[in-house]
Amino acid sequence: MSKILRVNMTDRTAKSEDVPEKYQLLGGRGLTSAITCDEVPPTCHPLGPNNKVTFSTGIVTGTTAPTSGRISIGGKSPLTGGIKETNSGGMAGQKLARLGIKAIIVEGLPKEKGKFWLLKVNKDGAQLLPADEFAGKGLYETYPKLFAKFGKNVGIIGTGVAGERLMSMAGVCVNDPENRPSRYAGRGGMGAVMGSKGLKAVILDDTGGPGVPIANQEVFDAGRKKLVAALQEHALTKPGGTLNTYGTAALVNVINEAGAFPTRNFSDGRFEGANKISGETINETCKKRGGVGMTGHSCSPGCIIKCSNVYPKPDGTELVSCQEYESVWSLGANCGIDSLEVTGELIRLCNNYGVDTIEAGVTIGVAMEAGLAKFGDGKKAIELMHEIGKGTPLGHILGNGAAITAGTFGVVRCPTVKGQGMPAYEPRAIKGIGIIYATSTMGADHTSGYTIAPEILDVGGKVDKFIVEKADLARNFQYTTAYIFDSSGHCLFISFAVLDISSGLEGVVEECNGVLGTNWTVDDMLRMGKEIVDRERAFNEAAGFTKIHDRLPEFMKYEKLPPHNVVFDVPDTELDKVHGR
Amino acid sequence: MSKILRVNMTDRTAKSEDVPEKYQLLGGRGLTSAITCDEVPPTCHPLGPNNKVTFSTGIVTGTTAPTSGRISIGGKSPLTGGIKETNSGGMAGQKLARLGIKAIIVEGLPKEKGKFWLLKVNKDGAQLLPADEFAGKGLYETYPKLFAKFGKNVGIIGTGVAGERLMSMAGVCVNDPENRPSRYAGRGGMGAVMGSKGLKAVILDDTGGPGVPIANQEVFDAGRKKLVAALQEHALTKPGGTLNTYGTAALVNVINEAGAFPTRNFSDGRFEGANKISGETINETCKKRGGVGMTGHSCSPGCIIKCSNVYPKPDGTELVSCQEYESVWSLGANCGIDSLEVTGELIRLCNNYGVDTIEAGVTIGVAMEAGLAKFGDGKKAIELMHEIGKGTPLGHILGNGAAITAGTFGVVRCPTVKGQGMPAYEPRAIKGIGIIYATSTMGADHTSGYTIAPEILDVGGKVDKFIVEKADLARNFQYTTAYIFDSSGHCLFISFAVLDISSGLEGVVEECNGVLGTNWTVDDMLRMGKEIVDRERAFNEAAGFTKIHDRLPEFMKYEKLPPHNVVFDVPDTELDKVHGR
Repeated sequence: MSKILRVNMTDRTAKSEDVPEKYQLLGGRGLTSAITCDEVPPTCHPLGPNNKVTFSTGIVTGTTAPTSGRISIGGKSPLTGGIKETNSGGMAGQKLARLGIKAIIVEGLPKEKGKFWLLKVNKDGAQLLPADEFAGKGLYETYPKLFAKFGKNVGIIGTGVAGERLMSMAGVCVNDPENRPSRYAGRGGMGAVMGSKGLKAVILDDTGGPGVPIANQEVFDAGRKKLVAALQEHALTKPGGTLNTYGTAALVNVINEAGAFPTRNFSDGRFEGANKISGETINETCKKRGGVGMTGHSCSPGCIIKCSNVYPKPDGTELVSCQEYESVWSLGANCGIDSLEVTGELIRLCNNYGVDTIEAGVTIGVAMEAGLAKFGDGKKAIELMHEIGKGTPLGHILGNGAAITAGTFGVVRCPTVKGQGMPAYEPRAIKGIGIIYATSTMGADHTSGYTIAPEILDVGGKVDKFIVEKADLARNFQYTTAYIFDSSGHCLFISFAVLDISSGLEGVVEECNGVLGTNWTVDDMLRMGKEIVDRERAFNEAAGFTKIHDRLPEFMKYEKLPPHNVVFDVPDTELDKVHGR
Repeated sequence: MSKILRVNMTDRTAKSEDVPEKYQLLGGRGLTSAITCDEVPPTCHPLGPNNKVTFSTGIVTGTTAPTSGRISIGGKSPLTGGIKETNSGGMAGQKLARLGIKAIIVEGLPKEKGKFWLLKVNKDGAQLLPADEFAGKGLYETYPKLFAKFGKNVGIIGTGVAGERLMSMAGVCVNDPENRPSRYAGRGGMGAVMGSKGLKAVILDDTGGPGVPIANQEVFDAGRKKLVAALQEHALTKPGGTLNTYGTAALVNVINEAGAFPTRNFSDGRFEGANKISGETINETCKKRGGVGMTGHSCSPGCIIKCSNVYPKPDGTELVSCQEYESVWSLGANCGIDSLEVTGELIRLCNNYGVDTIEAGVTIGVAMEAGLAKFGDGKKAIELMHEIGKGTPLGHILGNGAAITAGTFGVVRCPTVKGQGMPAYEPRAIKGIGIIYATSTMGADHTSGYTIAPEILDVGGKVDKFIVEKADLARNFQYTTAYIFDSSGHCLFISFAVLDISSGLEGVVEECNGVLGTNWTVDDMLRMGKEIVDRERAFNEAAGFTKIHDRLPEFMKYEKLPPHNVVFDVPDTELDKVHGR
């Protein structure tokens, strides 16, 4: 029987608890959000004694289900002031699941400020160990030391200097299969919540762990096979397919062509240097430079899609893993930078200091708007990232994200919703994703409902990107995502195969039924997705959010975006229809 | 017939408009808030093209009514994100009134960023003149240059470098009778809204102006006499009385004795160095040092109370005007500083850079909490103020106030409501003022309803400071304040005489009736006060505020305040009762 591990940082205790009945069938985001709603007062200070951070595995994480290694991290976000769930691939999710732990809940503040601790968990239990020797340093230095101490086969969930310094851009870092500090549950500043609790890292050693119990192996196996087949069939997800070959940055040219590639702090929808930072260029460069450089890298064992990469320097040695779409956009086009060498170095610094690449790029874009650097100045962008690493006053501004940076420098063109920086799709040019940004419980977040699939990729149907009547679409995508992807433990990228191939969707349902011993249908999962979103919305409402917070920034309503010269013209009534306000 | 002057900064036009019927009987806050509600979209960016800043005189301002020289400045606040009215004494209100102008509405953004303009207004009209030569400098340098150019008898409403840099701590500065840049409509960052519009200053030359029409001179005169008599009778407001002798800093020892003097960033209610920064010490020092130093200085012609002072250096030459209660507290006790030389210098820097002394002190307290300086380190506090003046990244953090500073450095003990720093009364130790802070439309603001009168000073009755059932008290004070003080044009400090002496209150009513030709009663004025507050609340609600925003910061609910070891224990239901939510 799986357990919940409850860790108190004030008295430094860790105790195992039975999983309450009401949480038995939950996982991932469903579970972190339920625990947050049950245990965290919505009006508490995110960095104060009453917030909690919860780590939870997906329902099928730790099994042989394909592309299902996600770990969810939840609590009240210091970036948005609302509820947050952010998930990551990497090595931690499966290990936590195989240790028989459904969730770790970390609560309380340490008695001594500035002290840090490691939470070491193995089959025999959990303990807190002093971590001061691992604090204050870049993660490329820290992670190898942790592996040297705890062995190469542990999973690490850590936070960097940004989290130690309580910066709300701080992400939570999970090691990849080669133990790089490179997979991030980046969004919403959950690394700062870890930092506030003095929790430097969680070390997961699943040696001898009980594994994930499967209630009905036959049902599970049938589901797994269906999903594997769908993933291997779909053009985007199959071996040698688009994501495997070009990575997520395959989207660069597609979105740029659509005039929806946010450029120079969301002042243009098309970037003249897009192709230089595209998936095609990444692929060619990796091939040309060779060395460790490769595309088709996987971020987590058991992934079929393998969209990650390890990008080489000119001499073939490793620069960084990985150059993905959101990162080459945010740190590239959004800053007017058209060099993969520069985006690679910036991504490396994000990994090293422990910050979200999306928020970092959106913030540097705002800083450039404020005059701290010229758009396109990669050298200066790198210097700005180092300010975060050094913890200077400027670093503290930037490290707290785009909204704080805009507030500090009086920048009106601030592309955030609920304080969170927008991802790589211009909502003026793709209305559905704008509705998602506006109405997501998470702030501006494409992963809350990836309507780009039908709006741009002709996946799961085909919907004109300029049509504004998309409340129903946005609602359905949010519900689907909350359970079928974010709670099952699968990566969002299975959605392409699942949306287009009905047996793939059946496969996910059957996998969950197999693990849990349930008999759910797709409709059940949508209903549970709705329950998750409704619960999160209730938390946000109790935290002070209204429909006014379900809006895009004002400038998008009066500034026309080239090349289509469009404003965000979705009526407020359509936005309010999403959640029936 | 009075007019409204409408100034557009985009096309640089100024035109005179008739006062619409609905605004005929309004003045001061009643008028700025009505215009803001009618013309400013509640969800607009405060520094964007759709916000407006309105300057309005009180109903009796410009007449011979005593202590009535207030000017109100309103719009959407960059500090709180809600509606804002902030008012000041000084020389501008009366001159604007005597020019026959009820309000100046400034709208639009200039086409060129970084350019500044002066709005010169005289009996012949208004024009915008280039102000670049007056920008980028301290106001102690700028104001004399402006008087040299426009004559010594003009009124100036200006903003400093903080406003030019769009910092949300930026106040609006009005010259005092000796033309010092020392009287501030400080709160809520309206100086930054001026800055965003490129409006460096308004120059008011009332020579030959029509004056304020009085509909019924007899009624007005009778009212004026009653108010004058009451002010001259009350112990707090009479010549040689408490305020005249010790200034507002007479409160230092009183509030400290009550255990409600916020000390070292609201971590204590009693300051061991209080007496060193008290009104008594100010008075003694002024007497001892002589020179220009004097107490009983007036901030505006026609004031009977004269609570201001001009504080001397040891050699008797002028250090600053003035050392008032809020400033010696915020920049003194709240930073652990017990030296009037230091508070004087800090106040001088606030005046020079154009920032609100309350927000500045609360911010430095938070910065000290963050470790940027030790509590009590006056030298370092002065250096921090200079950062604002220099516009460094740290200066931009601080210049945007306590909430941004706390957010940037991860400080949980952040004493703000709706983003505005708390004034000099600890809400844990004086519950009624806490209810005001929580439920005011303006953010934490003692001037929205000065319940300190009955809770501490036994003025207007006597109410135990620890009693929590004060929704009715808080509501009545807010309504009274909105019209009888903030709209009439009188200084809030007439409230002592008006609350204790019924003929004084009659006097205010009759003054207004005399000017307007109305036949109002006190109840009418309370009704109109309610209308103003309701309108402001509607604006805030449309801007996204809920009852959750009518709360004090969480730490005050769990951190016990010495010496009484009290938390803020007013139930949320009591807070919600104030405005009937």
